Amino acid sequence: MSVPAPRFIDLTGPEVAALPVDTVAVLPLGAIEQHGPHLPVSTDYVTATEVAQAAVAEVAEHGGASVVLLPGLAYTKSDEHHWSPGTIWLSWETLMATLVDIGRSLQTSGITRLVFVNGHGGNSALGQVACRELRRRFGLRTFFAHLGGPPPDQRARPTAGGEMGLGIHGGHAETSLMLHLRPELVQMDRAVRRVPEHLATYELVGFGKPVSFGWLSDDFGPDGHIGDPTTATAQEGAERFAAAVAHVAAAVVEAARFDPAPPA
Amino acid sequence: MSVPAPRFIDLTGPEVAALPVDTVAVLPLGAIEQHGPHLPVSTDYVTATEVAQAAVAEVAEHGGASVVLLPGLAYTKSDEHHWSPGTIWLSWETLMATLVDIGRSLQTSGITRLVFVNGHGGNSALGQVACRELRRRFGLRTFFAHLGGPPPDQRARPTAGGEMGLGIHGGHAETSLMLHLRPELVQMDRAVRRVPEHLATYELVGFGKPVSFGWLSDDFGPDGHIGDPTTATAQEGAERFAAAVAHVAAAVVEAARFDPAPPA
Amino acid sequence: MSVPAPRFIDLTGPEVAALPVDTVAVLPLGAIEQHGPHLPVSTDYVTATEVAQAAVAEVAEHGGASVVLLPGLAYTKSDEHHWSPGTIWLSWETLMATLVDIGRSLQTSGITRLVFVNGHGGNSALGQVACRELRRRFGLRTFFAHLGGPPPDQRARPTAGGEMGLGIHGGHAETSLMLHLRPELVQMDRAVRRVPEHLATYELVGFGKPVSFGWLSDDFGPDGHIGDPTTATAQEGAERFAAAVAHVAAAVVEAARFDPAPPA
Amino acid sequence: MSVPAPRFIDLTGPEVAALPVDTVAVLPLGAIEQHGPHLPVSTDYVTATEVAQAAVAEVAEHGGASVVLLPGLAYTKSDEHHWSPGTIWLSWETLMATLVDIGRSLQTSGITRLVFVNGHGGNSALGQVACRELRRRFGLRTFFAHLGGPPPDQRARPTAGGEMGLGIHGGHAETSLMLHLRPELVQMDRAVRRVPEHLATYELVGFGKPVSFGWLSDDFGPDGHIGDPTTATAQEGAERFAAAVAHVAAAVVEAARFDPAPPA
Amino acid sequence: MSVPAPRFIDLTGPEVAALPVDTVAVLPLGAIEQHGPHLPVSTDYVTATEVAQAAVAEVAEHGGASVVLLPGLAYTKSDEHHWSPGTIWLSWETLMATLVDIGRSLQTSGITRLVFVNGHGGNSALGQVACRELRRRFGLRTFFAHLGGPPPDQRARPTAGGEMGLGIHGGHAETSLMLHLRPELVQMDRAVRRVPEHLATYELVGFGKPVSFGWLSDDFGPDGHIGDPTTATAQEGAERFAAAVAHVAAAVVEAARFDPAPPA
Amino acid sequence: MSVPAPRFIDLTGPEVAALPVDTVAVLPLGAIEQHGPHLPVSTDYVTATEVAQAAVAEVAEHGGASVVLLPGLAYTKSDEHHWSPGTIWLSWETLMATLVDIGRSLQTSGITRLVFVNGHGGNSALGQVACRELRRRFGLRTFFAHLGGPPPDQRARPTAGGEMGLGIHGGHAETSLMLHLRPELVQMDRAVRRVPEHLATYELVGFGKPVSFGWLSDDFGPDGHIGDPTTATAQEGAERFAAAVAHVAAAVVEAARFDPAPPA
Repeated sequence: MSVPAPRFIDLTGPEVAALPVDTVAVLPLGAIEQHGPHLPVSTDYVTATEVAQAAVAEVAEHGGASVVLLPGLAYTKSDEHHWSPGTIWLSWETLMATLVDIGRSLQTSGITRLVFVNGHGGNSALGQVACRELRRRFGLRTFFAHLGGPPPDQRARPTAGGEMGLGIHGGHAETSLMLHLRPELVQMDRAVRRVPEHLATYELVGFGKPVSFGWLSDDFGPDGHIGDPTTATAQEGAERFAAAVAHVAAAVVEAARFDPAPPA
Repeated sequence: MSVPAPRFIDLTGPEVAALPVDTVAVLPLGAIEQHGPHLPVSTDYVTATEVAQAAVAEVAEHGGASVVLLPGLAYTKSDEHHWSPGTIWLSWETLMATLVDIGRSLQTSGITRLVFVNGHGGNSALGQVACRELRRRFGLRTFFAHLGGPPPDQRARPTAGGEMGLGIHGGHAETSLMLHLRPELVQMDRAVRRVPEHLATYELVGFGKPVSFGWLSDDFGPDGHIGDPTTATAQEGAERFAAAVAHVAAAVVEAARFDPAPPA
Repeated sequence: MSVPAPRFIDLTGPEVAALPVDTVAVLPLGAIEQHGPHLPVSTDYVTATEVAQAAVAEVAEHGGASVVLLPGLAYTKSDEHHWSPGTIWLSWETLMATLVDIGRSLQTSGITRLVFVNGHGGNSALGQVACRELRRRFGLRTFFAHLGGPPPDQRARPTAGGEMGLGIHGGHAETSLMLHLRPELVQMDRAVRRVPEHLATYELVGFGKPVSFGWLSDDFGPDGHIGDPTTATAQEGAERFAAAVAHVAAAVVEAARFDPAPPA
Repeated sequence: MSVPAPRFIDLTGPEVAALPVDTVAVLPLGAIEQHGPHLPVSTDYVTATEVAQAAVAEVAEHGGASVVLLPGLAYTKSDEHHWSPGTIWLSWETLMATLVDIGRSLQTSGITRLVFVNGHGGNSALGQVACRELRRRFGLRTFFAHLGGPPPDQRARPTAGGEMGLGIHGGHAETSLMLHLRPELVQMDRAVRRVPEHLATYELVGFGKPVSFGWLSDDFGPDGHIGDPTTATAQEGAERFAAAVAHVAAAVVEAARFDPAPPA
Repeated sequence: MSVPAPRFIDLTGPEVAALPVDTVAVLPLGAIEQHGPHLPVSTDYVTATEVAQAAVAEVAEHGGASVVLLPGLAYTKSDEHHWSPGTIWLSWETLMATLVDIGRSLQTSGITRLVFVNGHGGNSALGQVACRELRRRFGLRTFFAHLGGPPPDQRARPTAGGEMGLGIHGGHAETSLMLHLRPELVQMDRAVRRVPEHLATYELVGFGKPVSFGWLSDDFGPDGHIGDPTTATAQEGAERFAAAVAHVAAAVVEAARFDPAPPA
Repeated sequence: MSVPAPRFIDLTGPEVAALPVDTVAVLPLGAIEQHGPHLPVSTDYVTATEVAQAAVAEVAEHGGASVVLLPGLAYTKSDEHHWSPGTIWLSWETLMATLVDIGRSLQTSGITRLVFVNGHGGNSALGQVACRELRRRFGLRTFFAHLGGPPPDQRARPTAGGEMGLGIHGGHAETSLMLHLRPELVQMDRAVRRVPEHLATYELVGFGKPVSFGWLSDDFGPDGHIGDPTTATAQEGAERFAAAVAHVAAAVVEAARFDPAPPA
């Protein structure tokens, strides 16, 4: 990219106050949580912040919206990995309180549009709740975007054949992304396949199926990751990254003009 | 149905203690909230409790699982309709606290499996959060089922052509269900089409699209419903009801034996 | 009754908005909690909702006030029975939060008068707190009525001779009411007398005595009920029910015109 | 009194640890709140602490129980007087949190019995909730005593003829007590009769009647007191004080041996 | 002193409303917590309330400000002594909630200036947080004064040679104060030296050093006090008391006119 | 530096579990808040994270302790700047909840020592509270270090003559640091002197004086900074930075072996 991502935190107070109407603030939601024996605990934080930064830079370069990047949240709702060393998790109350406080502050800053860029599936549900809460209490127009388009629970579907749609945590997709973004932190020699194939025998309950279920990552075994990292490649990571950046950039542009009210 | 739905509340304390292992408790989640000028505020409560009761009865009659019906929650998270007379809404904190308290109590009762049957889309996200919270804190196996299968945000998709996938609240589907279940409470003479057709012009942001957004029901106009109730029929309501009952009954049976741990 | 009880939830949002000034909303407070080996855990929920419904119907038929029935709360503050299977209890924080949320919603609905009809003694104290909180925060005129008149802690006094004023939970009175309302759910063959007669030896501390005490139901023994259900009859239940309905109906009518301000 | 009241706060940590089994801790609950133009805002605090101290001293002198006096709470739940200068009130959440923290601490101190001596009617309901909470969470045997016996809401009944049972705040009884305890702080020249006589016209709703209601003290008029202080005398105050001390002393002695479990 | 300390609680509601502009309210913060085997658990409560009362009286006598004394808080944040019998501690949430409620009430009373007089080092940090919270939410000008001037963490420095600056709890200074104020409650025969001399070997971490640390009083040993009470004398206590009173009185006078806004 | 700072987030879960005993985790506390018209809102975040990272790297290179750097908190307690665009602040409840959640997670990770490196004076008091809370609840040894040694409220004292000890926010020291660390973000042409000189006229109340006060940054004027940035230089910033790094590095080494218990 040739234009750096404009960052909220590089501005002075008066400069924030002078941002154009309908400026979109982008808040990456990462996570610090165990990702199996082969990936660093930063995986979701790295992917969310890298995608968000690149997307914001792209919007800034090619126009379409006024946009600023907010510092991403490293610590979020990783309660499904609460049992594991390496996980630093906020309770749902704490994360909601944090998002509410941020929303209130943005209101004071004159920001009216906020796009979450979420790298951790465990934040998706609470993020929906927060989007509405911030709309109701502070009048913010809020948006919730995932890396690559479909929500995490569904991105697993038939992308990686060997994963049977079950590569939701530390599997093919995330490992590929990290091989692209932080190859030095990926330990492919420790990567093992951990696909809960028996889940496919259930018709209704499961990831991306009509009935969701409450799970902890150690419900599936002691390793903590769910998927098959052994097939990951940096090349696929690069492609996924590019797609995610394009997706988020487009989402930001659309968010800048989105209006649910019927045209007069 | 020839067998009544077994109800938790009809039992004595000792009878609850003696329920079979892996008995599934079913908790309907309704809502009391404005549904436009043509539907009663009970719409989601009626549909959730009627479907859940019929599904529990079906499971009880045809076997496959030990199951008990819990009293449904009438008041839930209807913050998107907070502005309207007729809406009685709990904050997210209150609803979560309620679900946590119920989960703790079920643990004391020896219940280990809980299926939410949700009639109100506004509960879906928080329900996901609760499913995990109850799993982590009380060891409950938790499941979240919607009426008819796909999550509410998506059930709107191509079902009713005239709604363009936007009939999410008080539209064709819900009005049909109520024409079947409570025809005396539906005022078809006040039913008007309120489809925010312009939403279709957005590529990424929208109901059932990759990027969700935080909305209040009066963002779309003063009537409060979103969809086209004018095409609703009791016949379609009956079909939808039967499908929902069958879906939930199957979900309960599957939930009774669901186990995420890999077989030994 | 020849006139059905008008129900809040049968109305549309606009119909709620059009309710007459000084309409009284009636909220039954039940409980789902162990009631000994002979009564269902629904006992307080059944009695509160049946009495409230009949009373609202009576007011609707005979006039005197505009009134609407709200869906009753099944889950309330049963912490004294927290130890028992069959009890589903809310903490005091959760129940207060629920009542506050309901009060806020009624304010938006234009409702200014609220009568609680309480079937569970364990709610009485918190209900008083809530009445004031809703008055202060939302301007609601709030009222707290018990089944049959005197507060539960005192209804035990000399009604049933054999209970020595100690039949406060699952005893003669409640069992009689259930024999009238739900005879099929009462297991008289399991009814045993559990009267803590030694409490009579205390002069100041006790039920209905000057000094109250904090108790859990298993403080009195492992069965969980306190009283003598063996003397209960459906006939007495019918009489108690009729008296309770008449009492609550009269309370609603009075609540509709009650004004603490001195006449000008 | 010839024996001073033993005070918890005069002991060292090791001395607290060495208190006899079944020592009763006594916690006065006062209030700092407007009491009309003639009484200081300390009225409930003064009466509760003076009665408690004298009662504890009496028990210490005449035996019957091991007892220690705790520092009373000055600031409590005076939300009904929130509107007035001079009132310093805790919300119900704050007061409950305070009582819970005290209960937890007493548990650590090896104290198992706690008697609240309450001088402010507005604390009665929450105090009941707290008694149960402390019993459940910390195993404390808890007791709630009022000044003079019957609960404040009812002490107004027919004691002072001119008050028609409505002298609940700053009226004949409290003014008499203060004329005895703090005559220099009572401004009888500003005492005016403020009896909401019209409340007598209600059959069911009212102070000490079957249906309670949520009220604020300015619901009855701008002066803030409710009753007739003009008939108060120091002589009656002295009699009431002596009766209250005797009552609380007897309650403490009974609390020291009270056991709800049936004798073996 | 020849003029008694004017007390908020001796006033009527209307008298509070009529207090002069810029009246300073003084709130003593004590603690009930173990102070070793030689001092009563009331030590911080006694010192804070005695100093505050004397200082308020001095200001009242010699003028310089309108001032009123509030009832001190006996129970505060003694979590560092949570392990010990004799300690009655509020959590930080509870103490903050209490201070917020008091601040809100003072606003209603027309009080705009509040001085905390703190006798317990464990309250210092939270007190700072509260000062800002009350300024932000209620517009109060808030001040936080310690007994004797420098903050407790630093008063230990070189005052008592034998304590090496480590006499922070129940040591030379506090024991001397109590020998002056409550000699009958000091058990010098149980006083033992407990100075954690090895702390002096740390360069950066320690009491009054650049890096503070989170400690509990039993981190230093089982006795619970930290310092050397054996050198304490009533004479030094008297001198310290006089200095503290003079300091707080001067602080009150300055607080009455303090204004951070630059002069026009 | 020749050795990169070891980072917690670069590790896998199993690697975190394998960290040496007494490993020190370092958590930078920044802030996103207005810093006048000349400094970016990131000032405290930049300084805290840069100092912490360099200090951790130094310890890693020169030994003395096992140490890992945690992702710093960008959003913290900036309530004194709540009024200004550019400030994103957490309430004290939210920040405490965040720190508690982090502490709980570190306990699960086997981390027993935590050093806060604080760049924002507004976090100091709450940080003290948190240090004790984490010690009590999770057994963590906690330490709170400031940039450069003395606590922020005091670092202002006589460093910059022209500031009279009042350069506490956006003044000489912080501007110098930013001229060294992020010169491109400092707008010296907008730097103006804002020293509340009149504060020097108060004897007891003030920054670094015996009596602290609750302030908001707009109490001193509309610009929001307090100090004199016009004298700042990159050279002094470099010196201050080096000193801060050395200080924090030494603090980490000491924290790794600090033990309050007397040697056996």
